[in-house]
Amino acid sequence: MSLQSEVEATIKRISGHPSVLGMLVLGDDGTPIKSTFEVDETAKYSSLLTQFAALSRSAVRDIDPTNDLSYVRVRSTNHEYICIPDKKFHIIVVTGTSDGQ
Amino acid sequence: MSLQSEVEATIKRISGHPSVLGMLVLGDDGTPIKSTFEVDETAKYSSLLTQFAALSRSAVRDIDPTNDLSYVRVRSTNHEYICIPDKKFHIIVVTGTSDGQ
Repeated sequence: MSLQSEVEATIKRISGHPSVLGMLVLGDDGTPIKSTFEVDETAKYSSLLTQFAALSRSAVRDIDPTNDLSYVRVRSTNHEYICIPDKKFHIIVVTGTSDGQ
Repeated sequence: MSLQSEVEATIKRISGHPSVLGMLVLGDDGTPIKSTFEVDETAKYSSLLTQFAALSRSAVRDIDPTNDLSYVRVRSTNHEYICIPDKKFHIIVVTGTSDGQ
């Protein structure tokens, strides 16, 4: 299976989960590579959550320079945003919350 | 049971959990009210994670103004930081990770 089809299969599997509202794959500069959202939501999520992942990483390093960020989960009343920063990609998954949606 | 002793009992219960390395209760301005850490770690955690909780809240509101932050979990290689912002207090719990400690 090529890397491309592997990525496609993974996105299909994750975004097919009932609680998942959508997901994005961003380049390390925050440029959307893949998204299951409409264009305007993709733009909103990608700019905000890329900054947020970068801030999370620097907060972790400020506390302990030997440490590195694995992921961030931001739980709000309506949604949960899971940001998984990797070397070349950022993966963002947006899920509903049982009390939200 | 008075509010004070209720808070003490809750802190004792949470910080007694095997995976918990320590916890802090901060005022809404980030001033440490209670901490199970040494003074310098308390200062480091309180300043960084208060800013972080505030940024998380504004990111959530930017995405959806009707939404509000419930909590943030920052998972790093060595630790997990759980920030629970409330109206008057911020509660921060630091746990080890099975791969970290």
